[in-house]
Amino acid sequence: MINMGVISKLAMKTDTKIVMVVVDGLGGLPDPETNLTELESARKPNIDALMKKSVCGLIDPVGLGITPGSGPSHLALFGYNPLEHEIGRGVLEALGIGFDLERTDVAARGNFCTVDSEGRVIDRRAGRIETEKTKELCKLLEDIKVDGAEVIIKPGKIHRFVVIFRGEGLSGNVTDSDPQKEGKFPKTVEALTPDAEKTARCVNEFIAKAKAILADKHPANMLLLRGFAKHPNIPTMGEIFKLTPAAIATYPMYRGVARLVGMDVIPTGTTIEDEFRTLEENYGRYDFFYVHVKETDSSGEDGKFQRRVEIIEELDRSIPRLTALDPDVIIITGDHSTPARLKAHSWHPVPILLYSRWCRPDGISSFGERECRLGSLGRFPSLGVMPLAMANALKLMKYGA
Amino acid sequence: MINMGVISKLAMKTDTKIVMVVVDGLGGLPDPETNLTELESARKPNIDALMKKSVCGLIDPVGLGITPGSGPSHLALFGYNPLEHEIGRGVLEALGIGFDLERTDVAARGNFCTVDSEGRVIDRRAGRIETEKTKELCKLLEDIKVDGAEVIIKPGKIHRFVVIFRGEGLSGNVTDSDPQKEGKFPKTVEALTPDAEKTARCVNEFIAKAKAILADKHPANMLLLRGFAKHPNIPTMGEIFKLTPAAIATYPMYRGVARLVGMDVIPTGTTIEDEFRTLEENYGRYDFFYVHVKETDSSGEDGKFQRRVEIIEELDRSIPRLTALDPDVIIITGDHSTPARLKAHSWHPVPILLYSRWCRPDGISSFGERECRLGSLGRFPSLGVMPLAMANALKLMKYGA
Repeated sequence: MINMGVISKLAMKTDTKIVMVVVDGLGGLPDPETNLTELESARKPNIDALMKKSVCGLIDPVGLGITPGSGPSHLALFGYNPLEHEIGRGVLEALGIGFDLERTDVAARGNFCTVDSEGRVIDRRAGRIETEKTKELCKLLEDIKVDGAEVIIKPGKIHRFVVIFRGEGLSGNVTDSDPQKEGKFPKTVEALTPDAEKTARCVNEFIAKAKAILADKHPANMLLLRGFAKHPNIPTMGEIFKLTPAAIATYPMYRGVARLVGMDVIPTGTTIEDEFRTLEENYGRYDFFYVHVKETDSSGEDGKFQRRVEIIEELDRSIPRLTALDPDVIIITGDHSTPARLKAHSWHPVPILLYSRWCRPDGISSFGERECRLGSLGRFPSLGVMPLAMANALKLMKYGA
Repeated sequence: MINMGVISKLAMKTDTKIVMVVVDGLGGLPDPETNLTELESARKPNIDALMKKSVCGLIDPVGLGITPGSGPSHLALFGYNPLEHEIGRGVLEALGIGFDLERTDVAARGNFCTVDSEGRVIDRRAGRIETEKTKELCKLLEDIKVDGAEVIIKPGKIHRFVVIFRGEGLSGNVTDSDPQKEGKFPKTVEALTPDAEKTARCVNEFIAKAKAILADKHPANMLLLRGFAKHPNIPTMGEIFKLTPAAIATYPMYRGVARLVGMDVIPTGTTIEDEFRTLEENYGRYDFFYVHVKETDSSGEDGKFQRRVEIIEELDRSIPRLTALDPDVIIITGDHSTPARLKAHSWHPVPILLYSRWCRPDGISSFGERECRLGSLGRFPSLGVMPLAMANALKLMKYGA
């Protein structure tokens, strides 16, 4: 019952403002000692005060039981059906380093690796060589020419880089060269569909030439490519929702997803406080803000329950800056769950708080996973978040007579 | 997740009876002083007594965040996906005045207006001329002949009327002649699709001839047409659910929607009490009753919180007449929300109460928006109401072996 085509027809430009705070991996699991999740354990007086004036519920990013990656879970929050729109990892990486991807480009994640004298991969990360070294090596590979496509190489952090193949008739439907395991040979890249044969040829030619150049550059004497993907060519949030959206995020990948859906990415610092200061400084210029809090996810993946609690408490200290701006709609939620006990993304539904002066407050006094199951928003797909935000900001016209 | 095709195959005729009371615009928003909504504020001992034996939940008429018009929100309650079936305003109006629309007819809303000497609209409602005057003027227009279609004109209330174009090859895909603003000229009606060109020609010919007839009838010296629409040709509730349904409604438009889905419209009076007396008198003749309470919506649009409370209390006083009939299933819900604070239809989910001897009572003692979020029905699309009603009336066979 969430039809974004209909929402798009009803959307109208108004002066009201929406702020969506995405706390990465927000949903957690209870600590066996206290029986409280990370969110339930955190002292967060400001978020809880906002909760009393808000409605809440639980969202499923992609579907019941599905553990999503960051791409699909963010797309859903931004109003794009993640089962219809796929963002390949290569595209995410390219956008994340700020590369201006063209709509026909195919991008892949690359990393330098170490191979033995027979060509077997013995270290998939080439000893995690320094970022400076990666820049030097990418410089060397820049001059490689392949038949039928331009090749662009952009260094990333430590041993990582991005390769973009630019030209007509390219496709992302090719296999990885990365064997994923040490002790194996790099794989020949293969077309998964007939229209990808040219791409596979270009990529294999590039890899062969790079191999020759890198041969004497031990430990970075080879490279591996994976996650080939073409720009997904999706309509922008401006087109769909008639919003002028901006993203405030400290990490490249999230800035990348935001850019993909047409958000302006506003430069910011490295802390949550920096992000909310950036929000304050740019509040007049946009009508939709996506504010991303990263470390709840990374500390979840590291199994650091207490660190997750601390990040939520750190976020809470910045909430008065947000509420002082008095946005028409405030949403606090996550893209998915990353329980510290699981040390990984998970399928658990994610708590969501929605404040607007037009909501019927649920009378719930603390924002937590178990409280949210009692909220009036019920349990619904993340794809429904944008329609609700738009409605509460009075940005949707009536449907039918 | 609601497949009406499956429901239709499982439906069977039985002696059990369903009464669906649709309290128009039932959902509200809390009064800032009391923190209670209109429904939560009302003293309604009979509804609350029924609630104790019932299940409850919250329904979304069209989709999360979508504010529906009366047409789509009623269709959903009657088991028709409002995104698949569209009822144009003209059709609603024609059905509402009891006009027996044929399946090829195109109908439009009309109103008399005042134009200045150059033809600019200076009063879109012609000073809201009296109903009697509108009848006289419609009589004058009855003789207009246009090439390719029969034209039928039916007066409505005050300055309003309905025009029906009858003939082969007509389409509702034409623009309005109503410029919607005073100071503008009436617009030429244009075809939106090639198959609507004949219709546009007929309509413009009619308007030109009417203009000549009305020229000296100031203040009603011109007419405006809008909401052109063809009969949607949807299957009846008899066909889908094997029901013999009846509608009891005081307002034309709701009788119109009911007629569209194949209900018998039973004449009734003007009050809620009249409607329940009509229900008593006709209880033996049908197995499904739609009882419509209008004024909760109109008082919501007027911003009259207390009036909404009073109408709910008035409804409550008629509930013993309903429960005395001992229907197998009783539903009390709304087609959408119309919070007095918003003075308009809204996207907020609508409380629903479902009584049957086969439900697992939720143990909730008062019917209200915030109580309903705790009900076992959860939050679900209005389209699910008919399957639940049918199941609770033991009118659905088992699916599969």
